[in-house]
Amino acid sequence: MDVLGLIAGTLTTIAFVPQLVKIWRSKSAKDISYVMFILFIIGIILWEIYGWGIHSMPVILFNVITFILGLAILILKFVFDRPAGEATETSK
Amino acid sequence: MDVLGLIAGTLTTIAFVPQLVKIWRSKSAKDISYVMFILFIIGIILWEIYGWGIHSMPVILFNVITFILGLAILILKFVFDRPAGEATETSK
Repeated sequence: MDVLGLIAGTLTTIAFVPQLVKIWRSKSAKDISYVMFILFIIGIILWEIYGWGIHSMPVILFNVITFILGLAILILKFVFDRPAGEATETSK
Repeated sequence: MDVLGLIAGTLTTIAFVPQLVKIWRSKSAKDISYVMFILFIIGIILWEIYGWGIHSMPVILFNVITFILGLAILILKFVFDRPAGEATETSK
């Protein structure tokens, strides 16, 4: 049963890699929901604390990786969704 | 510790709701990765089997809801991403 949990965790974690690659290649993330990734990342942080609390290495490990991937998607969305010229606007 | 796990699971599950709403409203999902949601749903099915195996009601419950939300996002992407006119094309 533990092996099944490991495979399940690997799949639901690496699933975010193709999403990250897609955003990176297309330089577009407008269909991605900010609210989804913000809620998701807060949830992942709580899973991380929960993992430490119950001393579960798989929970800790999978959630560290998912946190990094989710945060990277959120940052890329922020970068690519900014209207053109905003960078110069905000440098004022 | 269990309460923390429940809050964490609730957040990482309901996170998919705003994504679903966003796609429904904009009728666009081109920035969403098919590969992400296919891998994710397969992972969720394995989590579901794992949940039954270890008799964990939270794992079973959260993953049923996440499965429905993930599948709905995948179906909406399929519907909205089809090129205009394809519906009549395929009806031949």
